[in-house]
Amino acid sequence: MDFVLPEFNAPNFESHAFISSPNVHTEEVIKNGVAPENFHATTIFPEYFKINNKWTLANNSRMDCVVVVSDDGLEVKEFRKLIVGDRVIVGRNEDATQGIYVHTNGFQSERQSDETFVFRTGRSRETSFSRDYDRLYELLRYEKDNGYIVFVLGPAVTFDQDSKKAIVSLIQKGYVHAVLAGNALATHDLEGELFKTALGQDIYTQVPISKGHYHHIDLINKARQYRSLEEFVIQEGICDGIVYACLKHNVPLILAGSIRDDGPLPGIIPNAYDAQDKMREYTKKSTTVLGLATQLHTIAVGNMTPSYQVVNSSIRPVFIYSVDVSEFVVNKLRDRGTLGATSIVTNIQDFLVNLNRNLH
Amino acid sequence: MDFVLPEFNAPNFESHAFISSPNVHTEEVIKNGVAPENFHATTIFPEYFKINNKWTLANNSRMDCVVVVSDDGLEVKEFRKLIVGDRVIVGRNEDATQGIYVHTNGFQSERQSDETFVFRTGRSRETSFSRDYDRLYELLRYEKDNGYIVFVLGPAVTFDQDSKKAIVSLIQKGYVHAVLAGNALATHDLEGELFKTALGQDIYTQVPISKGHYHHIDLINKARQYRSLEEFVIQEGICDGIVYACLKHNVPLILAGSIRDDGPLPGIIPNAYDAQDKMREYTKKSTTVLGLATQLHTIAVGNMTPSYQVVNSSIRPVFIYSVDVSEFVVNKLRDRGTLGATSIVTNIQDFLVNLNRNLH
Amino acid sequence: MDFVLPEFNAPNFESHAFISSPNVHTEEVIKNGVAPENFHATTIFPEYFKINNKWTLANNSRMDCVVVVSDDGLEVKEFRKLIVGDRVIVGRNEDATQGIYVHTNGFQSERQSDETFVFRTGRSRETSFSRDYDRLYELLRYEKDNGYIVFVLGPAVTFDQDSKKAIVSLIQKGYVHAVLAGNALATHDLEGELFKTALGQDIYTQVPISKGHYHHIDLINKARQYRSLEEFVIQEGICDGIVYACLKHNVPLILAGSIRDDGPLPGIIPNAYDAQDKMREYTKKSTTVLGLATQLHTIAVGNMTPSYQVVNSSIRPVFIYSVDVSEFVVNKLRDRGTLGATSIVTNIQDFLVNLNRNLH
Amino acid sequence: MDFVLPEFNAPNFESHAFISSPNVHTEEVIKNGVAPENFHATTIFPEYFKINNKWTLANNSRMDCVVVVSDDGLEVKEFRKLIVGDRVIVGRNEDATQGIYVHTNGFQSERQSDETFVFRTGRSRETSFSRDYDRLYELLRYEKDNGYIVFVLGPAVTFDQDSKKAIVSLIQKGYVHAVLAGNALATHDLEGELFKTALGQDIYTQVPISKGHYHHIDLINKARQYRSLEEFVIQEGICDGIVYACLKHNVPLILAGSIRDDGPLPGIIPNAYDAQDKMREYTKKSTTVLGLATQLHTIAVGNMTPSYQVVNSSIRPVFIYSVDVSEFVVNKLRDRGTLGATSIVTNIQDFLVNLNRNLH
Repeated sequence: MDFVLPEFNAPNFESHAFISSPNVHTEEVIKNGVAPENFHATTIFPEYFKINNKWTLANNSRMDCVVVVSDDGLEVKEFRKLIVGDRVIVGRNEDATQGIYVHTNGFQSERQSDETFVFRTGRSRETSFSRDYDRLYELLRYEKDNGYIVFVLGPAVTFDQDSKKAIVSLIQKGYVHAVLAGNALATHDLEGELFKTALGQDIYTQVPISKGHYHHIDLINKARQYRSLEEFVIQEGICDGIVYACLKHNVPLILAGSIRDDGPLPGIIPNAYDAQDKMREYTKKSTTVLGLATQLHTIAVGNMTPSYQVVNSSIRPVFIYSVDVSEFVVNKLRDRGTLGATSIVTNIQDFLVNLNRNLH
Repeated sequence: MDFVLPEFNAPNFESHAFISSPNVHTEEVIKNGVAPENFHATTIFPEYFKINNKWTLANNSRMDCVVVVSDDGLEVKEFRKLIVGDRVIVGRNEDATQGIYVHTNGFQSERQSDETFVFRTGRSRETSFSRDYDRLYELLRYEKDNGYIVFVLGPAVTFDQDSKKAIVSLIQKGYVHAVLAGNALATHDLEGELFKTALGQDIYTQVPISKGHYHHIDLINKARQYRSLEEFVIQEGICDGIVYACLKHNVPLILAGSIRDDGPLPGIIPNAYDAQDKMREYTKKSTTVLGLATQLHTIAVGNMTPSYQVVNSSIRPVFIYSVDVSEFVVNKLRDRGTLGATSIVTNIQDFLVNLNRNLH
Repeated sequence: MDFVLPEFNAPNFESHAFISSPNVHTEEVIKNGVAPENFHATTIFPEYFKINNKWTLANNSRMDCVVVVSDDGLEVKEFRKLIVGDRVIVGRNEDATQGIYVHTNGFQSERQSDETFVFRTGRSRETSFSRDYDRLYELLRYEKDNGYIVFVLGPAVTFDQDSKKAIVSLIQKGYVHAVLAGNALATHDLEGELFKTALGQDIYTQVPISKGHYHHIDLINKARQYRSLEEFVIQEGICDGIVYACLKHNVPLILAGSIRDDGPLPGIIPNAYDAQDKMREYTKKSTTVLGLATQLHTIAVGNMTPSYQVVNSSIRPVFIYSVDVSEFVVNKLRDRGTLGATSIVTNIQDFLVNLNRNLH
Repeated sequence: MDFVLPEFNAPNFESHAFISSPNVHTEEVIKNGVAPENFHATTIFPEYFKINNKWTLANNSRMDCVVVVSDDGLEVKEFRKLIVGDRVIVGRNEDATQGIYVHTNGFQSERQSDETFVFRTGRSRETSFSRDYDRLYELLRYEKDNGYIVFVLGPAVTFDQDSKKAIVSLIQKGYVHAVLAGNALATHDLEGELFKTALGQDIYTQVPISKGHYHHIDLINKARQYRSLEEFVIQEGICDGIVYACLKHNVPLILAGSIRDDGPLPGIIPNAYDAQDKMREYTKKSTTVLGLATQLHTIAVGNMTPSYQVVNSSIRPVFIYSVDVSEFVVNKLRDRGTLGATSIVTNIQDFLVNLNRNLH
């Protein structure tokens, strides 16, 4: 069965509620990084704002931000990016009575024909995932050419030979349009390429190598001689692995720093909010996001990914998958109100092998 | 790489310790079900007993039992099966000084060349499982014709369409020589065949069916009209699923009752210790055991499965796998001292699909 | 704040729906253990049946059973207990149109004032439990004298010195009216009393004792010399621990056998369905049930415990608590539709210490 | 029983191995942030280096760093802090043959009398924790006046009223000498103080408050008006909670930024490596570290905390506790080789209440 993009039902702007609605009220930012009181905070849903008697969609949205109105249109901004003079939309009614409309059921018809969304409230190891896999395969085949697929990868992806090969193969085949990860992912991946170990153990046999615990920091120290991972990979003749595949296939690899990092490698973004900005560049484009075996990064990305995207002037849903062996982790995204998130409870080694085998 | 059975190194019975050892001492059971004080308790290892100046291996062993000596040889018995007059071996030194020798390193050379056994003390979602999978495939290809493969199945196996198909296919291909499970497995499997649901939800789409919660007990009530699952399956025209596949391919299906059962179905063994006896019939033959997504049954079977088996007069290891999404569950078997147990942390849906895809 | 029992709102039997309803239809059992087709299956809710033009409540109910009508009134029976000639209520409409009414909102007003019931859909390690603890303390203080408190105990309760002392103290103070458990609980408890170890490790220092692995089976073998745990405890001079406390304070201790048992001890119920019957004797009386660190027993008891109880001719709710360190386990009860179940995600060692410290 | 600090056994520097050892070899850093090849990497153990024929201990150590020799002595430095000209110790033998000695058993005698260290390899929900609690109480009573206790707190601490009160009380009593946490902890804590909610739910009743989802970002936006949390707390009249208690009792509160942050609050350290530096200031002083319900921060702190500390010119152990409801999280620290780490598997709500109740 081929994937069909669910149709978006726009609000009926001809109805009384929308016509009788006032324009939005805005207030000016008087201190950098601080919104005016009573600011309207964004959600993950499509939101419309009445400006000059015209209802305008906020594009490139994300939740828990504010909307700044300018001559260029609407911009959804994090608090920390507000600058003095920004005109921020205020008002907390979301039903068009204040020029603000949050459209929570734009893809409703799809969901009505798909009752599972309603009933699968909690997902566990005992949930049946056959259909989710089948749907995901269909979705990714569609997205490969028509969407933007963002992989969010935890370091566990690199510990297993088969899962590492699977993600590399998915990159080669064109199913990965951006990778968001941390210092550990790149470090373990490159250690595997340079030394055939991960944290000093043979990546396949798991046999610890003599003085193998040095590999980890030897790798980091060696990489730090270069200005970038690209230079490192080229100079050291690395020709396989996730980092290499991303570089070769022009897949952006965004690596955020964290307090548990050794090193870090060159190219890591040390500032958490710079990293957010960089990551959001890609979630702004994303149409499907897969968060694999990383609680921190998956939640971070979930926070900055809206439930919809404007592609070729029409509105389509963004699909989010969270895959982890822990129910707590996969359900956390759901608790945070991220619509359209599908949780799969399994080891990501098997998940990636499944994906790669079913996608060509 | 083909699987090669590790060679067994028998103790050197010509050495002084064995030659100078006295014969075992035995004492008689004077109350049914109660061993004499100072009884020797069995382990999972090969154990030798000096009787009439000859060292004899206890075959068909299991841990935490006693050894009864008769003219027919040695029998490893549960306490509850002791009868008055049984001659039970006593003595707690296991080093041949009391005619008792527990041989803990009979497959040592294999382990020496395989250092992973030593180092992989704790296994988690972040352990690399590629090699374990590869080894398991090789092992099962060998065991299909040369061993006896026992599957221990939790009910989660039946909730997912793909995993259900996978286990059925493995049965058809000859990789399953016995199935040990409970009432829930058979109930959910048969509900799936009769109603296409599991606990009232469509087995593939997960959509709840109207009055579908009746399916579960309707199935049970319908089955209870028959004297056996075999009769039920034939009379109701069931022609797929795990129960059907076991019946068709003459794979013994042992179903133990439990306090959480509805029904139960015909053929369930209501008495826990009768069920143990029946299960042990199959663990006595087993050369590979896979415990999938069931803590209770996997531990029960782990308790009654020795680390070795006598096949064609030679001693070979028994391999045990425990697969579950929870580290706690898979490591529990390890904590109990079951040697040679390999833990894989993943969803058994994926595990079974992997197995079926790699075995022909 | 003192605990106040929520009031029950009976259906309005004077309303048209009830008055115009026909009497129930029954059909006779023609094979032992098998219900007639179209049987009505019970739920956890209060259910009323119109018999001889009078609406009658089924008392001592449990879910997934059938209702047998006799001159003595209504009896909620498991399928396996049906005997030829039993008149079973049939019909699957639950809205009074077939003489059957399932009253799902009898304690509604309580719940309306208590919005938390609505919103706490999933519970996790990050749920706040302060209020649940406070309510539970109030509840148990009330139930001590006015209710019937059933503890369902997993073996982990006995591994820790403080938790063992806590449950013993709760028994002494009168907060425990029945204990439902398995062979392992009693075995570990008695090993602790006789040898000061659990599975051979010192119960406090955790230091393994030389040949301590024999303690477990020595204890079992010793106990099997006696006809009952009572005789064993008296004869061996055991004067502390859970088993002893139950015997001394006349708290019924129901021990169900399982396939993972060693032994078993005297007094264990080997047949799963006999054990169910015995357990249900106590859930029939129960007004509060606490399932601690045992998935199997908690689900078994959850299945046989209704959401209400008739006490002194009036209907009151039954409160069920499920406590475990695993979200999967505590939420399983909830998934099965058990109303009024409160899940607490913590180690039961701490839970029991909390309970004992706050109850006098 | 009072806590007694285990004695440290220094190496015997008079032995032949030490006397015959050469001085360390050093090489110069020729590029900032990059160590010379063959650098010696530090461990968590006390390490001695022979310089000018004298064995010198590296103080304020941490693992996976290098040792820089200067006229001021030895400094254990992260790679990223190396500057051109730094003289880094090279050599990878740790047995004194290269002037480097890693002293792995300096507190051995303590461990010999305490066999539990050896045997408790894996810890789970079923481990007995009574003794660990008792030891921890004794330890903290000692450390209160004689040590430096660092709490590493996950945000879950703030969701529950009782746990929040407990940590505040521990701060007041003097058991908390520094708090390491993230933006979420402070945000939820302050939301609780300002609005009596956490993520919009009443912190005690869990009832969601109308428009309560705005509390979270209203709090952040309000705080961002100020230059510091201190100013915010004073100006807004906040007079309870964790942030307030830290400020009032001069307990340093180090808040590291992360990619999942909203805001952030004033005072958060946005750069991961600046945050590491700041955190290490406190781990350098720490004698006991408690990591509660945060995988990221606990591992980060575990990485930068050595197993020993020099206090009043003598060497003493550093004690690390990791408390979480997940075995995976608590055992992760152990897998990383952090010596002397004690894992407790429980909900930190109960853990903190226990601590506060037993410490005065």
